[in-house]
Amino acid sequence: MKWCRFETNGAVRFGIVEGDLVTQVEGDPFNGYQETSTKFHHDQVHLLVPVVPPTLYAGGLNYPDHVIWAAEHAGTPPIWPKEPRLGARATNGLIPHEGVIIKPKDATDEFQYEGELVAVIGKYARNLSREDALSCVLGYTIGNDVSERSWQRDDTNNWRAKDTDTFHPMGPFIATGLDPTNLDVSVRLNNDEKIRFNTGKMIWGVADFIEQITRYHTLQPGDVIWTGTEGATLNMHPGDVIEIEIEGIGTLRNSVGSEE
Amino acid sequence: MKWCRFETNGAVRFGIVEGDLVTQVEGDPFNGYQETSTKFHHDQVHLLVPVVPPTLYAGGLNYPDHVIWAAEHAGTPPIWPKEPRLGARATNGLIPHEGVIIKPKDATDEFQYEGELVAVIGKYARNLSREDALSCVLGYTIGNDVSERSWQRDDTNNWRAKDTDTFHPMGPFIATGLDPTNLDVSVRLNNDEKIRFNTGKMIWGVADFIEQITRYHTLQPGDVIWTGTEGATLNMHPGDVIEIEIEGIGTLRNSVGSEE
Repeated sequence: MKWCRFETNGAVRFGIVEGDLVTQVEGDPFNGYQETSTKFHHDQVHLLVPVVPPTLYAGGLNYPDHVIWAAEHAGTPPIWPKEPRLGARATNGLIPHEGVIIKPKDATDEFQYEGELVAVIGKYARNLSREDALSCVLGYTIGNDVSERSWQRDDTNNWRAKDTDTFHPMGPFIATGLDPTNLDVSVRLNNDEKIRFNTGKMIWGVADFIEQITRYHTLQPGDVIWTGTEGATLNMHPGDVIEIEIEGIGTLRNSVGSEE
Repeated sequence: MKWCRFETNGAVRFGIVEGDLVTQVEGDPFNGYQETSTKFHHDQVHLLVPVVPPTLYAGGLNYPDHVIWAAEHAGTPPIWPKEPRLGARATNGLIPHEGVIIKPKDATDEFQYEGELVAVIGKYARNLSREDALSCVLGYTIGNDVSERSWQRDDTNNWRAKDTDTFHPMGPFIATGLDPTNLDVSVRLNNDEKIRFNTGKMIWGVADFIEQITRYHTLQPGDVIWTGTEGATLNMHPGDVIEIEIEGIGTLRNSVGSEE
């Protein structure tokens, strides 16, 4: 089952996506819903980010080749985290599928994408064991964790390098019933596949993140957990189009624009 | 003018506080409101956190004596930030005035309070100059930035040391019309004043934070900016009561409990 969130006639709604059709619901996937008889062709709805999270959690350094790439890039030894590496992020940067990523005027050439699987939490959860961890997940969506690498070296908490406006494209859908340990991810820059990897290569899986977070935090319905990317990442330039496709979810597509 | 947010008969409402009376409004201070004829004695309402922020921004190392204390505590040279030092925090930890701060069972003795002035943003804001920065502020409330110092040394982004459940008491009211550069703050542990300082001692003021954030982020109505604390902080133990009083706002009072 695939969920979308969209704007129609000035109101924000959730819908169920089947093929090219979107069935509008009353309510939402977190607190309960009822299907309505209103159906749209997908071209007729303006997709929004599939959820506005109370907290956006982001994991980092979570795939082996990316850990090695990041170390080579920084000229330091690789950091192999002893536990899931995570932090909370601001929510201002969220933009939907087909939204435009704005490259800030003072950004350097090191303005890069990161294709990531994103877990969407469906209910309150605290103290979940690793075995039960996935029971609180509603489904999965796709994130592009846009990063300005030169800023990342000095920012406290990456507040600028990763949280600037438009730096968090997320969508298009939340897909339920997926196995997060075995999903193929493809990242394409201007229709050219730059990397393909499987989420089974994560150093710490979605269940590990949830076990760790819920030891101290109550996860809330709508919270999202971004799980990191694999491999080397490349620079994006105004005019580029970035597509991240994940098996069973769909494709998150965003173009790059510039600030005046 | 003082705003509160409260629960009554199962609904969440905003109210205007005058002396011992709370006047219920329709709407909210961010999107518009109308006073109703419903008034409560303050004892009759259950206060909630005065706002649930889209993003909780936190400044750190922002008062001179605290910078020196933190350095001595860590055995390192003082860090004098060249720009406002900030990051986004999770929202799970928010609790209201009179809520109970829970000391986790694996926390060490270094479980401490931090009394802070908190700016509450009233409207969308981007690219504000320092001179115009305060124009987006609705008012000010009080925060207790509870910190587990031993965890703080290793946590990425302080996700555990500062974001664990109940670690963000905030309230009781949002007061409008204050000058954030000249407010006395008193922090009391079990009715014993441990420190008194003026917000004029901030290294970076509220206007500096807003200028810096809005250069890259769109601030959203309801966002909050915590501005750091002064001096040495002390350990709290189960049974303790922490009060933070700020001139013109009121007193945020929370007791400390323990996890089983």
